[in-house]
Amino acid sequence: MFYGGKRESLGDNNLKNYKLIIQYEGTRYKGWQRQDTTENTIQGKLEQIFSKMEGRKVEVTGSGRTDAGVHALGQVANVQLETAMSQEEIMNYANQYLPEDIALISVTEVSERFHSRLNAKRKTYLYRIRNTKVRDVFSRRYVHVFPEKLDLQAMKRAAGYLEGTHDFKAFCTKKKMKKSTVRRIDCIDITKKDEEIRFLYEGNGFLYHMVRIMTGTLLEIGAGKREPEDILKIFESGKRENAGELVPGCGLTLISVEYDEK
Amino acid sequence: MFYGGKRESLGDNNLKNYKLIIQYEGTRYKGWQRQDTTENTIQGKLEQIFSKMEGRKVEVTGSGRTDAGVHALGQVANVQLETAMSQEEIMNYANQYLPEDIALISVTEVSERFHSRLNAKRKTYLYRIRNTKVRDVFSRRYVHVFPEKLDLQAMKRAAGYLEGTHDFKAFCTKKKMKKSTVRRIDCIDITKKDEEIRFLYEGNGFLYHMVRIMTGTLLEIGAGKREPEDILKIFESGKRENAGELVPGCGLTLISVEYDEK
Repeated sequence: MFYGGKRESLGDNNLKNYKLIIQYEGTRYKGWQRQDTTENTIQGKLEQIFSKMEGRKVEVTGSGRTDAGVHALGQVANVQLETAMSQEEIMNYANQYLPEDIALISVTEVSERFHSRLNAKRKTYLYRIRNTKVRDVFSRRYVHVFPEKLDLQAMKRAAGYLEGTHDFKAFCTKKKMKKSTVRRIDCIDITKKDEEIRFLYEGNGFLYHMVRIMTGTLLEIGAGKREPEDILKIFESGKRENAGELVPGCGLTLISVEYDEK
Repeated sequence: MFYGGKRESLGDNNLKNYKLIIQYEGTRYKGWQRQDTTENTIQGKLEQIFSKMEGRKVEVTGSGRTDAGVHALGQVANVQLETAMSQEEIMNYANQYLPEDIALISVTEVSERFHSRLNAKRKTYLYRIRNTKVRDVFSRRYVHVFPEKLDLQAMKRAAGYLEGTHDFKAFCTKKKMKKSTVRRIDCIDITKKDEEIRFLYEGNGFLYHMVRIMTGTLLEIGAGKREPEDILKIFESGKRENAGELVPGCGLTLISVEYDEK
């Protein structure tokens, strides 16, 4: 029997690449990334289900990690599958086995070249502050309670200094030193609605803990403990200890990840 | 020693009447009303805390019951307390002991004549339908998933027949036969936003299961299984079995209870 090029296509080409959009309430999880142990992680849950479906070890590639407790409205991942199931069937299969705080909301076959992390062009994150001591049971899993009086104008001025292309090394927890810490923030939108203050961040990418450290710094400015112009000094120093505190993961939601059309 | 009228005032008048506004996510509870056993109920939790605070058995009177799984954004109750604590201190004390899915959001001293159930003039309930098979982890605790195609106009026409003053005995699960089953519905507002259809009910009072049976009936009309004019026939018959199905408690939220000013 002669397989020739055919053999290769029977192997590799049977794998189709799928773009997944995933929603999760991060409260119960140790974050997106699979860990060595069988800890509760979003990636781990998805890989378990797809591996069972395919009868082989399947890897799911995320657009980026989210930390323990962080939520996602539109996390994006991609996965290579051999199955003959339709997109909708794959979605239904996975949702049947996913716990109720994780949902696959879209499955689309994409070019084999699509990589959810390397091709991501823009990400949007939301950080929610509940700015009162009065409790709210319905938002409790998604907000950080910070009842101190906040100066919205001061925070907006400070956010203006964060926008643009900068080296954000002072605004991240170091993991690897080798990679560039330059990122572009297109927009930081701070809005107040009733008792809630929302920080919406749009940019081409965010470093480890970056959104939570920026939010912590903005809150210190809003509470009058620092000046908006401190942002410039923090950039200049490049030192993590000059930036503000890391706020809790529960207030953070990954809203969306965008890609260039085709 | 002579006490005269003074003695009486030292007794009764030490009790102050407080209006409470309470928020809860009903998922974990058997409903508002305290039960014989030490079941999980909202009223039971509140009475436990106030009894501990006062060192005596305290009763909390609610504006009405909510069923197992039903939520509240603004349930109202009243309680008589002897404590010297301020309104804010009472609120903080209770919130310290309440589980995180129940919150006391307002405590106000009111006239001794204020009765949260007997004085209630108007109630607003919301029933939320998620009208798609695509899952949503963030709304899952608060919606009833009903993916069938729904005719909004037909449901709105049917809702028009429900509005007004009618004998709603066909739209309730009978508990006691003696009391009047006549109620006035001021408004049923049906709106669609993205994948969600919301039924907002405002009226002077609602019978046992009434909102859930009306919603079940409207859904059957929306799905084309009945005509909007069936509402008239159901009223005429006065029979529960002619109305639609009881929809699940999880989709229902008591939004507010209103009283006449002072």
